[in-house]
Amino acid sequence: MVALALAEDIGSGDITTIATVPADARCVARLRSRVAGVVAGLPVATEAFRQLDGTLAFEAHVRDGAAVAPGDVLLTIHGAARPVLSAERVALNFVQRLSGIATLTQRYVAAVSGTDAIVVDTRKTTPGLRTLEKYAVRAGGGQNHRTGLYDGVLIKDNHLVAAGGITAAVRAARRHGSHLLRVEVEVDTLDQAREAVAAGADVILLDNFDATGLREAVEMIAGRAMTEASGGINLSTVRAAAEAGVTLISVGALTHSAPAIDVGLDFDFVPA
Amino acid sequence: MVALALAEDIGSGDITTIATVPADARCVARLRSRVAGVVAGLPVATEAFRQLDGTLAFEAHVRDGAAVAPGDVLLTIHGAARPVLSAERVALNFVQRLSGIATLTQRYVAAVSGTDAIVVDTRKTTPGLRTLEKYAVRAGGGQNHRTGLYDGVLIKDNHLVAAGGITAAVRAARRHGSHLLRVEVEVDTLDQAREAVAAGADVILLDNFDATGLREAVEMIAGRAMTEASGGINLSTVRAAAEAGVTLISVGALTHSAPAIDVGLDFDFVPA
Amino acid sequence: MVALALAEDIGSGDITTIATVPADARCVARLRSRVAGVVAGLPVATEAFRQLDGTLAFEAHVRDGAAVAPGDVLLTIHGAARPVLSAERVALNFVQRLSGIATLTQRYVAAVSGTDAIVVDTRKTTPGLRTLEKYAVRAGGGQNHRTGLYDGVLIKDNHLVAAGGITAAVRAARRHGSHLLRVEVEVDTLDQAREAVAAGADVILLDNFDATGLREAVEMIAGRAMTEASGGINLSTVRAAAEAGVTLISVGALTHSAPAIDVGLDFDFVPA
Amino acid sequence: MVALALAEDIGSGDITTIATVPADARCVARLRSRVAGVVAGLPVATEAFRQLDGTLAFEAHVRDGAAVAPGDVLLTIHGAARPVLSAERVALNFVQRLSGIATLTQRYVAAVSGTDAIVVDTRKTTPGLRTLEKYAVRAGGGQNHRTGLYDGVLIKDNHLVAAGGITAAVRAARRHGSHLLRVEVEVDTLDQAREAVAAGADVILLDNFDATGLREAVEMIAGRAMTEASGGINLSTVRAAAEAGVTLISVGALTHSAPAIDVGLDFDFVPA
Amino acid sequence: MVALALAEDIGSGDITTIATVPADARCVARLRSRVAGVVAGLPVATEAFRQLDGTLAFEAHVRDGAAVAPGDVLLTIHGAARPVLSAERVALNFVQRLSGIATLTQRYVAAVSGTDAIVVDTRKTTPGLRTLEKYAVRAGGGQNHRTGLYDGVLIKDNHLVAAGGITAAVRAARRHGSHLLRVEVEVDTLDQAREAVAAGADVILLDNFDATGLREAVEMIAGRAMTEASGGINLSTVRAAAEAGVTLISVGALTHSAPAIDVGLDFDFVPA
Amino acid sequence: MVALALAEDIGSGDITTIATVPADARCVARLRSRVAGVVAGLPVATEAFRQLDGTLAFEAHVRDGAAVAPGDVLLTIHGAARPVLSAERVALNFVQRLSGIATLTQRYVAAVSGTDAIVVDTRKTTPGLRTLEKYAVRAGGGQNHRTGLYDGVLIKDNHLVAAGGITAAVRAARRHGSHLLRVEVEVDTLDQAREAVAAGADVILLDNFDATGLREAVEMIAGRAMTEASGGINLSTVRAAAEAGVTLISVGALTHSAPAIDVGLDFDFVPA
Repeated sequence: MVALALAEDIGSGDITTIATVPADARCVARLRSRVAGVVAGLPVATEAFRQLDGTLAFEAHVRDGAAVAPGDVLLTIHGAARPVLSAERVALNFVQRLSGIATLTQRYVAAVSGTDAIVVDTRKTTPGLRTLEKYAVRAGGGQNHRTGLYDGVLIKDNHLVAAGGITAAVRAARRHGSHLLRVEVEVDTLDQAREAVAAGADVILLDNFDATGLREAVEMIAGRAMTEASGGINLSTVRAAAEAGVTLISVGALTHSAPAIDVGLDFDFVPA
Repeated sequence: MVALALAEDIGSGDITTIATVPADARCVARLRSRVAGVVAGLPVATEAFRQLDGTLAFEAHVRDGAAVAPGDVLLTIHGAARPVLSAERVALNFVQRLSGIATLTQRYVAAVSGTDAIVVDTRKTTPGLRTLEKYAVRAGGGQNHRTGLYDGVLIKDNHLVAAGGITAAVRAARRHGSHLLRVEVEVDTLDQAREAVAAGADVILLDNFDATGLREAVEMIAGRAMTEASGGINLSTVRAAAEAGVTLISVGALTHSAPAIDVGLDFDFVPA
Repeated sequence: MVALALAEDIGSGDITTIATVPADARCVARLRSRVAGVVAGLPVATEAFRQLDGTLAFEAHVRDGAAVAPGDVLLTIHGAARPVLSAERVALNFVQRLSGIATLTQRYVAAVSGTDAIVVDTRKTTPGLRTLEKYAVRAGGGQNHRTGLYDGVLIKDNHLVAAGGITAAVRAARRHGSHLLRVEVEVDTLDQAREAVAAGADVILLDNFDATGLREAVEMIAGRAMTEASGGINLSTVRAAAEAGVTLISVGALTHSAPAIDVGLDFDFVPA
Repeated sequence: MVALALAEDIGSGDITTIATVPADARCVARLRSRVAGVVAGLPVATEAFRQLDGTLAFEAHVRDGAAVAPGDVLLTIHGAARPVLSAERVALNFVQRLSGIATLTQRYVAAVSGTDAIVVDTRKTTPGLRTLEKYAVRAGGGQNHRTGLYDGVLIKDNHLVAAGGITAAVRAARRHGSHLLRVEVEVDTLDQAREAVAAGADVILLDNFDATGLREAVEMIAGRAMTEASGGINLSTVRAAAEAGVTLISVGALTHSAPAIDVGLDFDFVPA
Repeated sequence: MVALALAEDIGSGDITTIATVPADARCVARLRSRVAGVVAGLPVATEAFRQLDGTLAFEAHVRDGAAVAPGDVLLTIHGAARPVLSAERVALNFVQRLSGIATLTQRYVAAVSGTDAIVVDTRKTTPGLRTLEKYAVRAGGGQNHRTGLYDGVLIKDNHLVAAGGITAAVRAARRHGSHLLRVEVEVDTLDQAREAVAAGADVILLDNFDATGLREAVEMIAGRAMTEASGGINLSTVRAAAEAGVTLISVGALTHSAPAIDVGLDFDFVPA
Repeated sequence: MVALALAEDIGSGDITTIATVPADARCVARLRSRVAGVVAGLPVATEAFRQLDGTLAFEAHVRDGAAVAPGDVLLTIHGAARPVLSAERVALNFVQRLSGIATLTQRYVAAVSGTDAIVVDTRKTTPGLRTLEKYAVRAGGGQNHRTGLYDGVLIKDNHLVAAGGITAAVRAARRHGSHLLRVEVEVDTLDQAREAVAAGADVILLDNFDATGLREAVEMIAGRAMTEASGGINLSTVRAAAEAGVTLISVGALTHSAPAIDVGLDFDFVPA
């Protein structure tokens, strides 16, 4: 993705930099957060600069997952000026977006602190960036749901219809998937949850249940399966869901709607 | 990007769907907006489904750029059930994100209506999605700034330092770039703006000027160059910038912080 | 992989066919098994021919997983002669190898018939062909172990050492992996097996246990975890392992040492 | 192919290793043959480890083509533990398969020792691995037939029919192929062999001739063309074919049915 | 290469065509030669248009290899206007260059008419276009030398030095190369030619021999090997080389210095 | 393109070099111009050698753009012999072609010396090599027209027809293209030129105007737009065009018909 992003931005050449910056100009540049947040993506930013110039020197001042304050320097770069200027935007686009995700995740994690609930992401990620965005969720203190359709079984309403009911669907999934994959079933009602547990589902996704419904479901399930609250969870409602006793709370907004964090590059030319 | 997103999500296989949905099951599925907004990305969603199954039939009910109300059906799909279920998330991820950008853009465009100012995007786009995101900005009624570093000259502060001043930088850019590329210079002060105009810059980017500063600059420049307001523009401040008389207003948030729009897929099995 | 295999074989051109076969020559060709076995890979063979010529017509006479007798025709192809001749070797290389795997798998499955044991594959597959080879195992009646290092946790001896013991390793894996992934632990002794079960492992891989050892382990575990027999299983020993009561028996030879099955192409020119 | 194999196995990440092995753990690992055989693929294994970590140190104890005894160490690796564990399976899959081919080839070569016959491979290779498998054949003491359809002319029965006979086919091939390519013709009978020699074929492939038939053909041809015995050659029959005086003996089994050789990785953590 | 060339030219979009030509505009376009020459590359041009729009209709009026007069229409295209305009330059760049090669080749072939000499190309081709340029040479009536370093052995002066002389080099090449590859040796003197023939070389490349030298060499070799004249051959000298009796004459200029042929696209909009 | 060219030439292996040159042979090799000209492509040649062997040492004696005399050494290479021999042809193919372009460009530039006219290239480049060929034009003292269809608007006759005239076309282009792109209009007559200027075109391409026509147009336009002479310009006519006062003169022959420059590689083995 870094190579793709550089190609996308630079294309047939960074005309401005080639025209105005001498090939032998040197610089020191500092990636600096302009706001408070949780940083994520520094190794990605580093990779962007490095792909344009393998001889740049990097000094990381914090690690991904660190809470930073406005003005904190995250990374210092020494070396040729042209590649730093040409990769700047790509590097920042990654860091700003990933730090945005980490920061929002951290707010959800903080909101459930003291409970046993785990905040997890969804597959509502930016096309092409899933691995990085799920990494940012971990940097923010969350955990990851399955990576894609291939490393977890999650039976939703349409699968249930096609398979002929919850019991049949769970059995079919057991037969097809590897024995190392658990089976999760999405349910809309307590009755469905009951049937899913009876069918041997390992995880019950409680879709759009309010706090009361979650609590009832958790009590009914009584530890026979893990539980996941999903759907319409926001920062106002997440704590109630956690207090209802669910194992996991999945939040699509972590990746699909996290605003970017403002990170900039302070750049100075230095003598060669 | 569609192929990449499908590979990312499906990987070694959509285990759940293969296990639970018969290969010959048929469906009708409707992409439906759950909120009001401006839609963008329907051809991308269509491509996602089509890549998994070239025999699906599509009926588009609106075109990108249309304003939609909650509950509006955007696209109807008929055909095999498995590919529709396996591509659903990828298709939605594209449409939700791109519609989010179009919707936010439309709000900025509406905010400057009646003025001559043009709302444009920046290079603060999601890595890998620039072409699509810039397309979504146009769907929302905005226009595009340069696509990348290769199709426009934009001289920023560091370029000025390296080139030895505004006049030298403009001259260098003219010499290096094709005669079909205009030269834009980013300035922080009215004095710099004055020097840039004198140097023959085609466009003056007024960085972080307030409304008063923008107005002074526009008056000083007096049509000798285009003007672009940039930096810290939000929905509260954009109209004042427009009324200051600038040619263009660039807004990074259009692409870096637009929340996704809620679009879902209503799915029904049908007899073969 | 089909495209890669065609490029590898045809390179800058099938000189012989271009030189000797007129461009408008037509043929009927029949893929025919020369031996008894279980067929797998017909869709792959079809794809190889189709990639060279999208207008060829195919008639499949059996489906993957079918037991075939010497002389059985598997697939008939009608169309231009050149692409059929140029793709012949690639198509056969796939079918012969995959059918070899399916046939060998079927022999292991037959050897455990009447027991509850499931025959599964390993990651000892041909580089680049894992998906196809695991598909061939299913065609032969086996099931699949994890696809790769990404869709299942299997803690081996070195992981145990690094993590500081079985209990610590299981806990670390739970924390890092998604909740949809089970945790399997490879053990060499009954004591290790006991510790792994106590640590909450979902599956115990009993490495190089003889039939007696397997039986003891199964009894000790008593349904608290699934069990997998692995290491040195062959057609002579597989039944004893199955009768020891293990859940799964993994056999590397299914994919790393299955001899190819002899399948040929009977080819006739026909008038245009 | 190494990159492809690593991507195939590691996918979105080696969960187990990341969870249980500290990022700064160091190891020494030894690739060790568990059986007697001819080794091939050590540079490929090295490349697999190196692609995951460019800073690993390697010490090769034997070269490809060497005969090894059970217990012999082939390669020692020092460095970070995680990349060694994550690349282990891929490295072993290559070495085991390629060494299997080299070992089987060596048995055929030994079987014809003292004759002038050259053992060569065919195009019956694993899709995607042709270059490596042909390399393994050379490591085992064999030689290579043409690499693909592009670097040699081999006229088979269907080509003969299409071209209108042996003489016409040979002439067509001469005209189309570069002057640096010899023309080989596959024949089923002595009469066909006679016609092929008369037509100026450079090599005569004697398909499914028994030892007597080979001897007759070699005598008839009398040095006017090279001769290749092919079809149904196995370790019991190869010497008789060689003693019949043919130039080359091609054996498909070298690459399509060589059982893998058991090679393992002995792994120890060491202090950093 | 067609896909690459289109990507190279169109990049992020054909701004002019999108801005000025309605999406539903239709056209008829005619590829027309403006000069006399031999045409080559029509299928490549067709492919360029087809890649942008799979629904365009094509009518070819001549085949590659045809001699055309000024004004001759080569290909007619019906369909959407935008893709025709956007692919025009790429299509023409291919046809003009390949037809230039075919035309120049035809002049060399004509210059040796009545002799037995065959005009062949070299590896002095445009990077990336070798297959197409060698195809154009055949369209012009020439034949092809080896395609690359992989499908023919050509021992040059430095190889001779390294191998320790002609005899050793020929022997080494025989041992390493497949039996289907001939061995050619480049020589500078008659003595070297004599040694190469004695060493069993199949082809002798007579480098920079004048007509007299070529004649002496041909007489000395007396049919024991093929002969190739190479180096400094131009349209003035090629006939004398041919009359000296060599088998082949290789001409680098066919591909490295053929001027492009002027071919244009006559374009008319038509009602939908 | 360098990787592509090496793959194209070397394919499955440089048989001759592997067979005849010991793996540990060392060399010094000198890239030497055999004629006078302007050199371009030395970094590309260096890259070709480097891709085959990252340990070769290079010493550049001139820089791209330098005028060289027959016999001048351009680049010296020290290191392993095999990679130098295997990459030789690819390296030379690049340097010869690019130097041919630089040399021809320099002749055009010299022909207009003393005038203000700028010699520019066109999109009539070799498929796949546009970036390199445009670089060679700059090395020869020319400047570049737009890189492709994406970084400049050039409205030609068919666009005018589709848009409904010059004024409409210019307006449409302004609306669609970024504000950083100038709009150029191709005209055939003085009247068209007049209309284009009135429509606000930034550049007027005067297509196939003779010197008198160019002069009239330049006078009429009177600095209100840049002017470009194009079509049928050759070394005999270019000066008259320049003296007519146009801003730019575009010459397709720079890239589509520049004969290659003879550059060779002098190669010597040296002791290890």
